[in-house]
Amino acid sequence: VSDSPTPTMFDHDVPDDVASVAPPLETVETGPRRSAAEEARTLVAGGNAGTLATQSKDGSPWASLVAYGTLDDGSPVLFVSRLAEHARNLEREPRTSLVVAASPAGDDVLASGRVTLAGVAVRPEGDLARIAQERYIAAVPTAKAYASFRDFSLWVLRVERVRWVGGYGRMASASGPDYAAASPDPVGPNGAYAIQHLNADHADALLTMAQALAGHPDATAAQCHAIDRYGLDLFITTPRGFGLGRLPFAEPVGDPNGLRGATVELARRARAAA
Amino acid sequence: VSDSPTPTMFDHDVPDDVASVAPPLETVETGPRRSAAEEARTLVAGGNAGTLATQSKDGSPWASLVAYGTLDDGSPVLFVSRLAEHARNLEREPRTSLVVAASPAGDDVLASGRVTLAGVAVRPEGDLARIAQERYIAAVPTAKAYASFRDFSLWVLRVERVRWVGGYGRMASASGPDYAAASPDPVGPNGAYAIQHLNADHADALLTMAQALAGHPDATAAQCHAIDRYGLDLFITTPRGFGLGRLPFAEPVGDPNGLRGATVELARRARAAA
Repeated sequence: VSDSPTPTMFDHDVPDDVASVAPPLETVETGPRRSAAEEARTLVAGGNAGTLATQSKDGSPWASLVAYGTLDDGSPVLFVSRLAEHARNLEREPRTSLVVAASPAGDDVLASGRVTLAGVAVRPEGDLARIAQERYIAAVPTAKAYASFRDFSLWVLRVERVRWVGGYGRMASASGPDYAAASPDPVGPNGAYAIQHLNADHADALLTMAQALAGHPDATAAQCHAIDRYGLDLFITTPRGFGLGRLPFAEPVGDPNGLRGATVELARRARAAA
Repeated sequence: VSDSPTPTMFDHDVPDDVASVAPPLETVETGPRRSAAEEARTLVAGGNAGTLATQSKDGSPWASLVAYGTLDDGSPVLFVSRLAEHARNLEREPRTSLVVAASPAGDDVLASGRVTLAGVAVRPEGDLARIAQERYIAAVPTAKAYASFRDFSLWVLRVERVRWVGGYGRMASASGPDYAAASPDPVGPNGAYAIQHLNADHADALLTMAQALAGHPDATAAQCHAIDRYGLDLFITTPRGFGLGRLPFAEPVGDPNGLRGATVELARRARAAA
């Protein structure tokens, strides 16, 4: 868990005339956010496919699509055919990395989350090989049909370095041990359904939250654009321009069914403070 | 355009007891299929994001998400910040590759098309830089907001080698010149809407096609699973087991609106032959 404030784009080399975000007018408690390791675990748990980078025979980088299963510590399990270049590449050079991306919410894929897991691919043996095979087939059921093909082999990606990008201006790194120790967010990578529901049916409550809890008492509209186990993020319209708000839940959400109670409590707290 | 028959999985190392596909009972004309270069151009034209493989400072392969625009010859245009590892990697080692994948039709991403474009990234200059910038912004409109940021730079991926995988057992390679010379299929990467419509509303016509034109006179059901400018592909149910059918259009489809006429002609031809 990281308690850094909402990251900004301050580190881009931006000309002076680019508009900036309207700041909050009051000091507000923004609470914790998912750490890079939690973001990564959440993305990996939410998918079964990614793109692998391996090194081709001539030394050039080779990108290729793979499906994956996941071990308990978040290590991806690959099951690849020697007919595919990536499998031959791994046999020669086991250093590799895997990108897993969230399904983009709109047309702009760069606004969505993705993670690179970099490390070393190893061939699992004994019980680990059996578990890895089970996990791969659980994630990719059609693999049952070719699990016995002798040109396929299992690999476990031992993650050593994690680079997460959450969208524009949101990015952070994590170590392999941090990644292994983190847990996936039960809310999922982007909570798309909850966001849609809040914006469609609870616009008034979101506006009250923006005014009473997010430091924008002059807000005229608010829209939820992200949600996670620790809270929700708002786009806020004010006479001073466009603002951002972060609203922490009273308690982290422990399972998907806890999301409703956490947002209801937030709305109640906003009304009481308004 | 390649006129090879439907590729099979014969080159996997398959145990003897794996079931095989029911062959056609009559010799049938299967016509041309999209070449690997056409498949690649179609996938690239149908998207604006992919995963790039670059080489990290320590020599290990680095996978990362990028958006892209496209030049007329299909060369992807990248616009990346030096704050991102992939940009610094390209400056050190311009050999790179990009995966572009179709949106998976179902849960099994390995059944969907994807392509790896491998080559060298170059910094465009003069008019080419202007055009590349325009193409990137056309594909990624939000980039207008950071087009002036000085930490971003344009790259054009000069494609030297193409590896296309169309799903299970469908794969082929193409050269850079083949890729540049091919044109995207106006039907798009997977013709999802047309497939849905044919299966929902024209199951009888598909069955007649399977019986009369695809060499399976004993077919009891047929389902379209792929469509392209040259024809459509069927999954066929027969008392002998599961079969595959390929039905070539009388003429390649020249624009998206031509698809309806081509399938109507095919249905008419099937009825006449039944």
